[in-house]
Amino acid sequence: MTDQVILREVGPRDGLQLIKSRLDTSIKLTWIRAQAEVGFTEIEVTSFVPISVLPQFADAVTVLADAQKIGKLLPSVLVPNLRGAVLAMDAGAKKITFVLSVSESHNKANVRQSTDDSLAMLREVVAERNNRQNIKIATALATSFGCSIEGAVSETRVTQIAEILAKQGIDEINLADTVGYGDPVQVGRIFTNVKVAVGELPLAAHFHDTRGLGLANLMAALDAGVRRFDSALGGLGGCPFAPGASGNIATEDTVHLFNKLGIESGIDLDALLEVRRQLAKWLPSEKLEGRLLGAGPAKQ
Amino acid sequence: MTDQVILREVGPRDGLQLIKSRLDTSIKLTWIRAQAEVGFTEIEVTSFVPISVLPQFADAVTVLADAQKIGKLLPSVLVPNLRGAVLAMDAGAKKITFVLSVSESHNKANVRQSTDDSLAMLREVVAERNNRQNIKIATALATSFGCSIEGAVSETRVTQIAEILAKQGIDEINLADTVGYGDPVQVGRIFTNVKVAVGELPLAAHFHDTRGLGLANLMAALDAGVRRFDSALGGLGGCPFAPGASGNIATEDTVHLFNKLGIESGIDLDALLEVRRQLAKWLPSEKLEGRLLGAGPAKQ
Repeated sequence: MTDQVILREVGPRDGLQLIKSRLDTSIKLTWIRAQAEVGFTEIEVTSFVPISVLPQFADAVTVLADAQKIGKLLPSVLVPNLRGAVLAMDAGAKKITFVLSVSESHNKANVRQSTDDSLAMLREVVAERNNRQNIKIATALATSFGCSIEGAVSETRVTQIAEILAKQGIDEINLADTVGYGDPVQVGRIFTNVKVAVGELPLAAHFHDTRGLGLANLMAALDAGVRRFDSALGGLGGCPFAPGASGNIATEDTVHLFNKLGIESGIDLDALLEVRRQLAKWLPSEKLEGRLLGAGPAKQ
Repeated sequence: MTDQVILREVGPRDGLQLIKSRLDTSIKLTWIRAQAEVGFTEIEVTSFVPISVLPQFADAVTVLADAQKIGKLLPSVLVPNLRGAVLAMDAGAKKITFVLSVSESHNKANVRQSTDDSLAMLREVVAERNNRQNIKIATALATSFGCSIEGAVSETRVTQIAEILAKQGIDEINLADTVGYGDPVQVGRIFTNVKVAVGELPLAAHFHDTRGLGLANLMAALDAGVRRFDSALGGLGGCPFAPGASGNIATEDTVHLFNKLGIESGIDLDALLEVRRQLAKWLPSEKLEGRLLGAGPAKQ
């Protein structure tokens, strides 16, 4: 394989949303700047959610504003609803990821409305975006590969929602294995079906390593033609409705895999491992995952 | 995929060889019996190596003798040389895995002779076996996917050695990623090439999860037609020449993957997780891996 991928770091958002420790704004920005320096062109820097729900992101406006000033970096932000989307646009966001769950129960637990209501709300978000300049909207389809509340999720429904999104004028669809239910055969099949349904619309993959299949699922998505991936440094992250679950695929292990495959991610792995060492100091009470720091990159 | 696999538990051998704690013979046998009860038909139970090198296996004869009495179980043993092979056969072993490394430096470090000398010695092992009844000889090709001493390993050399082994009358070839250097594309390619070279001879795969790619590599081997895999409960294991390395792919995560794929391993995952809980008690000072115990199986 000789190919290019975009690896989006989601640690400052997905990685922080469930941890007990509150990370200082200045440290968040140091982290974001450090990852931009080692080659990340896209980082999910924060979430525009009610402070009462996730106090970790009370500094969303500041973090986004400062991240926008980093050259070459496209900072993206997560929003769960129209209100968050408008706040993010007002704060100058150039890329917004609107999250909704394919599983009804998960969507209700996560954003307190039905999936169809989230889709209707997304139309309003797109309308609002169309009144402004140069804002991209991605949609993250949580529980695309299964749900810790409902179990199996209809693959037809995933494709159907993707088709609706494509018609709504979304710029990117991110299929998320929020709870680590996916397996490589299923992942390959779902991405292939969605690709057929939405044509040239960019697809991204967001895998949690809850059951150890994160990188196997990434390989399946890669084989299905996906070239955009999310990961979190140190494997941070989780889902409030998947107790005991470990987090996202670890950025450092993912970059190492791309290096082994000869796939260009633009990221300097050795420099990234230095940031990973810093992260352990910034979050001393968090259990970090990822194998590369201990094992070191394979000798060439 | 509707298919059957043989998953061989190697925890009692590979999993124990590097740990500081010495496990009592009775506990080893309790463990082996427990895994046979949850459905394992093959377990690597011990290693016939000099006691001075690996005192953990001083009880090899006893462990093998008692494991032989477990109905339906084929206990296999590792041997690094002719002496170990003869001792194992004398002790009644019905399956012996002779280990040699594709990498010269690794073979010298591990068994103190050149790879060609190991191959010559293996001919004597086969001759000895041919004088006896019903003994199978597998060969584990360590460092088939890279070496922590030499770096890259010649893929041509892997195929060449496999061809030599096929001519020697070996019953199974196990390609081992001893140091966690393999990636899925390479793993698929090497197994495909070796399969072409050796025809119907059964191939097995032994992956370490050192850099987080164990199950991704397993998927690639599965796609290449491999149906025999090694794993260790709790991801135990390591390699003396790969410092900082984590161990084998975790048996519990591997069984969960097979279940997700609809592949028949014959193993009861819930019952296995009970054994996994016991293992943590038997080895209180060891860091165990594997995600399934914490995350639980995916809801169906």
